[in-house]
Amino acid sequence: MSVLVVGSVALDSVETPFGKADEVLGGSANYFSAAAVHQTPVQMVGVVGSDYPVEKLEPLRARGVDLTGLERAEGESFRWRGRYRHDLNSAETLETRLGVFSHFKPKLPPQFRSAEYVFLANIDPRLQLDVLSQISKPKLVACDTMNFWIESRRPDLLELIGKVDLITLNDGEARQLTEHANLVQAARWILERGPRVVLIKKGEHGAFMFTKDTIFFAPAYPLESVFDPTGAGDSFAGGFMGWLARTGDLSESNMRRAVIVGSAMGSFVVEGFSITRLLEVTRSDIDARVADFHRLVSFDQALG
Amino acid sequence: MSVLVVGSVALDSVETPFGKADEVLGGSANYFSAAAVHQTPVQMVGVVGSDYPVEKLEPLRARGVDLTGLERAEGESFRWRGRYRHDLNSAETLETRLGVFSHFKPKLPPQFRSAEYVFLANIDPRLQLDVLSQISKPKLVACDTMNFWIESRRPDLLELIGKVDLITLNDGEARQLTEHANLVQAARWILERGPRVVLIKKGEHGAFMFTKDTIFFAPAYPLESVFDPTGAGDSFAGGFMGWLARTGDLSESNMRRAVIVGSAMGSFVVEGFSITRLLEVTRSDIDARVADFHRLVSFDQALG
Repeated sequence: MSVLVVGSVALDSVETPFGKADEVLGGSANYFSAAAVHQTPVQMVGVVGSDYPVEKLEPLRARGVDLTGLERAEGESFRWRGRYRHDLNSAETLETRLGVFSHFKPKLPPQFRSAEYVFLANIDPRLQLDVLSQISKPKLVACDTMNFWIESRRPDLLELIGKVDLITLNDGEARQLTEHANLVQAARWILERGPRVVLIKKGEHGAFMFTKDTIFFAPAYPLESVFDPTGAGDSFAGGFMGWLARTGDLSESNMRRAVIVGSAMGSFVVEGFSITRLLEVTRSDIDARVADFHRLVSFDQALG
Repeated sequence: MSVLVVGSVALDSVETPFGKADEVLGGSANYFSAAAVHQTPVQMVGVVGSDYPVEKLEPLRARGVDLTGLERAEGESFRWRGRYRHDLNSAETLETRLGVFSHFKPKLPPQFRSAEYVFLANIDPRLQLDVLSQISKPKLVACDTMNFWIESRRPDLLELIGKVDLITLNDGEARQLTEHANLVQAARWILERGPRVVLIKKGEHGAFMFTKDTIFFAPAYPLESVFDPTGAGDSFAGGFMGWLARTGDLSESNMRRAVIVGSAMGSFVVEGFSITRLLEVTRSDIDARVADFHRLVSFDQALG
């Protein structure tokens, strides 16, 4: 089963302590798709301006990303310029130019409306709600969000949260949304408002998956060098959703496995600029890293 | 086999968002002992002043902590006063009065000199070296340290590091000591200088155990409420060393199990002030939390 993603398709210019990249493929929909397509075909919904180098999306299309839902509008594409300092934990945004993205009204091609696995990446919750209303019978709807929407679109965001099965957000956003400093309490607050799964991402400190009765934790893979952290969260979501769509299994144990696939994709993407590493890795690289995650956390509780 | 600890025996006054405690048992040796004694007898080496309420140590003694090495000196006991704000991640020290601790010259009772499992808690590396020279044939020597010694006693600390089997330190200290921001690189730097095991503690973000060829990660247990974080690191070390001394098994797999026992003790101690919770919990509470840790990180890599 394929997975549908609605999000930004951008051009990023990034500076890290290890180098810089200019006008490379960026945006949540690109990262998500490049990660998810290793598992299953992807339907991408987004908008680019007339200046977007669409030919650079060809490797994604060739792998199985359906670009029918990628609108080309008159005007400039969404551009983000950012910088990471030595700790690599938080991006400093130098410039955001929304361009055609500011008038984005996602409209799903008819053949996308029967999508079963849907990821509403970080866009205005009103648009996320609008997309949701265009989908006939989804099996799993997940959404992401960010501090800006939590602050400026709280009622819409809460409406959305009431309608999705799963939400991903980082630890700071979870605290901001729920006003609970403690993540267990924050997750419970969200679970009481709709989603049956809450994924809290902690960057280099890993990720929690909360359900009503269970907590699962996946560490971030301890890489010896992190090159560019941009896109780690969306790549995580792509690996996670891609795995679920491929297997069609929403059991707790398979969702745990999906979190690890997501963590693997997050660990690959930060090894290079843009989606470069996601295009290089193979299914067997992913399997090997999943095995590495298993070795990383395994212990024998029967000893002693 | 018993475990020997050399460290501070203090009186703490602590304020957290959830309450305050005055002049309660504190110091690395107290926390370590209260955690380790669940696994194995403990030999404690330290110093207190003439004002120390030694009767409060009776529950520890009754459980198996040998206090023969606890010197009583004329003068004031070591006192620490601190406060935690809402994030609970870092203590703000309001006052430190070293008292008799400033002239501490650890002298091991003859029957302690054959100790096989030794924990040199966070004291001046010169004293740690001196203690080490009093021990005849240890099987496993571990040390802790802190930013103050890294800055002011670097040559002594490096000499010590060359003589221990294992070092525990937190992520900030590892970065400070090695001048590597990346923890994998930091651990490698330390491993090249002597210890064959490096334990890097990340507080609420868990702990890494590095050896030359392996990395193990243990999350911190996701507690719904953390009451007072004081002593988590020393309780972690106590559980870890206690388990190893009890089992006498220094294999990689048993050390992983020891890290989890340590993490369990760290998760208990923060549920109350001082060593209160460590005195309350039973062996079966510890086993249950170890099982909780197992559930927290387990996933089936064969799925899909």
